[in-house]
Amino acid sequence: MAEEKINEIEEEEERNEALLALVHESKFRTLRQELSEMNEVDVATFIEELDPEKTVVVFRLLPKELASEVFACLELDKQQHIVSSITDKELTNIIEDLSVDDAVDMVEELPANIVKRVLQNATPETRSQINEFLKYPENSAGSIMTAEYIGLRKMMTIEEAFSYIRRHGVDKETIYTCYVMDNKRTLEGVVTVKDLLMNPYETLIEDVMDTHVIKAQTTEDREDVVDLFNKYGLSSLPVVDKENRLVGIVTFDDAIDVMEEEATEDFEKMAAITPSEKPYLKTGVIDMAKHRIPWLLILMISATLTGGILAKYEAAFAVLPVLVTFVPQLMDTGGNAGSQASTMIIRGMAVGDIELRDVLKVLWKELRVGLLCGLVLAVVNFVRILLFFPGQQLVGIVVVLSMCLTVIVAKMIGCLLPMAAQRVGIDPAIMASPLITTLVDAVSLTLYFEFATKFLHIA
Amino acid sequence: MAEEKINEIEEEEERNEALLALVHESKFRTLRQELSEMNEVDVATFIEELDPEKTVVVFRLLPKELASEVFACLELDKQQHIVSSITDKELTNIIEDLSVDDAVDMVEELPANIVKRVLQNATPETRSQINEFLKYPENSAGSIMTAEYIGLRKMMTIEEAFSYIRRHGVDKETIYTCYVMDNKRTLEGVVTVKDLLMNPYETLIEDVMDTHVIKAQTTEDREDVVDLFNKYGLSSLPVVDKENRLVGIVTFDDAIDVMEEEATEDFEKMAAITPSEKPYLKTGVIDMAKHRIPWLLILMISATLTGGILAKYEAAFAVLPVLVTFVPQLMDTGGNAGSQASTMIIRGMAVGDIELRDVLKVLWKELRVGLLCGLVLAVVNFVRILLFFPGQQLVGIVVVLSMCLTVIVAKMIGCLLPMAAQRVGIDPAIMASPLITTLVDAVSLTLYFEFATKFLHIA
Repeated sequence: MAEEKINEIEEEEERNEALLALVHESKFRTLRQELSEMNEVDVATFIEELDPEKTVVVFRLLPKELASEVFACLELDKQQHIVSSITDKELTNIIEDLSVDDAVDMVEELPANIVKRVLQNATPETRSQINEFLKYPENSAGSIMTAEYIGLRKMMTIEEAFSYIRRHGVDKETIYTCYVMDNKRTLEGVVTVKDLLMNPYETLIEDVMDTHVIKAQTTEDREDVVDLFNKYGLSSLPVVDKENRLVGIVTFDDAIDVMEEEATEDFEKMAAITPSEKPYLKTGVIDMAKHRIPWLLILMISATLTGGILAKYEAAFAVLPVLVTFVPQLMDTGGNAGSQASTMIIRGMAVGDIELRDVLKVLWKELRVGLLCGLVLAVVNFVRILLFFPGQQLVGIVVVLSMCLTVIVAKMIGCLLPMAAQRVGIDPAIMASPLITTLVDAVSLTLYFEFATKFLHIA
Repeated sequence: MAEEKINEIEEEEERNEALLALVHESKFRTLRQELSEMNEVDVATFIEELDPEKTVVVFRLLPKELASEVFACLELDKQQHIVSSITDKELTNIIEDLSVDDAVDMVEELPANIVKRVLQNATPETRSQINEFLKYPENSAGSIMTAEYIGLRKMMTIEEAFSYIRRHGVDKETIYTCYVMDNKRTLEGVVTVKDLLMNPYETLIEDVMDTHVIKAQTTEDREDVVDLFNKYGLSSLPVVDKENRLVGIVTFDDAIDVMEEEATEDFEKMAAITPSEKPYLKTGVIDMAKHRIPWLLILMISATLTGGILAKYEAAFAVLPVLVTFVPQLMDTGGNAGSQASTMIIRGMAVGDIELRDVLKVLWKELRVGLLCGLVLAVVNFVRILLFFPGQQLVGIVVVLSMCLTVIVAKMIGCLLPMAAQRVGIDPAIMASPLITTLVDAVSLTLYFEFATKFLHIA
């Protein structure tokens, strides 16, 4: 870890300890002053560390505006604790100050009795907006968008636009990209504050807006939304319904969160874990076991196939026990070679470097890479066998021949399975290391014992 | 894949085909018109698909401003081809229009003779700035920052600031966050355009600027920079030197790129591949093999340890060949259980959910999760053995006892190794599935055969 990073962590810890001391000494005025100058994320981090009985005391010290920003950054259990401890009026203030996306996230996760209280204390407009947003399917663009954007009309002048922004900008998620709509909310163009600043005051919005709008539909997958942010380096993206009416926007910070969540999901799936949404330390033991056992079971049962193959060739290793010595090496190498290929392909498809139509290019590349890897490993292994198992040249040939072929087959399986999964609409990340290892094991052992029985003349 | 995504891809292909038709029919005026209305990323995607001889023809059609934006989006080989084919004057235009970070990226990657030509055609100021930026270590904050930001003085009024932004904003990477410095370039605060818009014209910058600036040092690791973007949802981050003088900024789009690159690197390391920077389809076969062979070799050699263990117990499976049947199952399950844990820990540390000081919490959690997983697998496996291997209850007990212990040990190794690596400054991603599988194999086989010799009274 870099020195600067350690310094930053230490500074944060020192600051939190100083704040904690203020809490214990009940120096609430100083504490309020300190907290109100801090970033909402840092205040949230500090509140996360407090005991339940201090949480609400400290939370109530926050200035109104900061309070809802901090609230949005808190973990679910703290949010729940605060909602159950504050008055209806305080609750209303927070809900009305939250962005719709944060309010929706909270309503989706909190227990039903708390949700009821939250919705009862929202204004009818907010309540109906939350309910509207709750309808969008999980993992859709609609589920990550928010409603706090600046909408302009194309016949406004830049001067009018600025005065509109000044009046309505305070609570918006972003004011830097404004959305131009007609009176049916049909999206007609986007204009940035930069465009507004760089042109004379009397210019019409129509003349500076960009009508080639990069946008998403509410039902589109949130991964596709993230791809658009990546591809075009966007800071926000409008989301429209089927009639091209603007219903919300996604901002880059939410896109970054999704990006990170999706990468984590892929890491988990590729390690044979059913993805969970909670951070590691907040997940219970039973919950965690539930996410791990299914795949362990499936893979354990599939591995009996490999066991069956070994059993089938019992005669061979009864005659020549040294054969068994090379089994782990073959199995491990095959698994590793396969997961190298599958990881490259799965990640390549996830970031858009590889498309399904590239399948032949990929196969041809993996075939040659497999051949190269297989040959190098075979040569090194043959030398090793000559050195450590003198007189076993024939066995050596059987081992390295199987190894070379196993590596090539493993690379083929490793690239084909994820692409086949993508083709039929299964998440390619499932076709990762563990599943491929199990498959390649079966192939490598069959090859090995077939060669052994052929070349070593054991029945 | 969602319907909308497929539509988008089809639309892009159709548009590119139409543009290609214009190229072949030499309808350059129409082509120029079409291209100049497109997003630079889309133009670059189109140019990537062109034959070399058409590339420069089409590139020259682009309006000057768009040309350098498109140039920055092109892959290295296309950039190189264009640089070698255009005139000195055209080259100067492009270099002067590029952001420093894009120019530096290009200079770092292009062959020496091309770089020489690039630097010769840059103005002395640009040349010295590029040389300055080239000095920052790879993967540091300095290496991903750029110099195109708006710098303000604290005694300016908002009105003066706006007129400064209007005059100097065109070429800046972002104008929405402005940096307030004294005449020694010491960073004193930040102010957003939103702050400027929401306050009266005569207000002093000093009175609206935020002095609690979240910033990075030039030498800081770029991963830490990305963590800051993540944690605080930043749109840009100032980078300062040791004397707190502002030297550049990092914008969120570059942070997103780094985030994706770092995740890809982790995927590769965790699959025993030395990370490469080029996209899959642009990497040559030999290059790819070079990134895969070292770890395959290391792991193949380590797996001989497991082979040695098997050899040591030759006598046991000579007496009772059925023992070998369960070897693949044990090895695979141990490897999978271990990599589940290691993946959770490695990813948790990468996104900051898990810190080194959580090691005891993590161990205690994995111990219990391991016990749960181990017990469930053992029960299922025991039933399976009773059903398919009648009369082998004793072997069954040996198998499930080893399996249960293996799973627990695998979870322990899986969480300890990455944390130990982090502790001593090695990238935890190295301690992933393949290495852990090899280690756990040795443990599981030793356990298995020790139990077998004890309980089954062999050897």
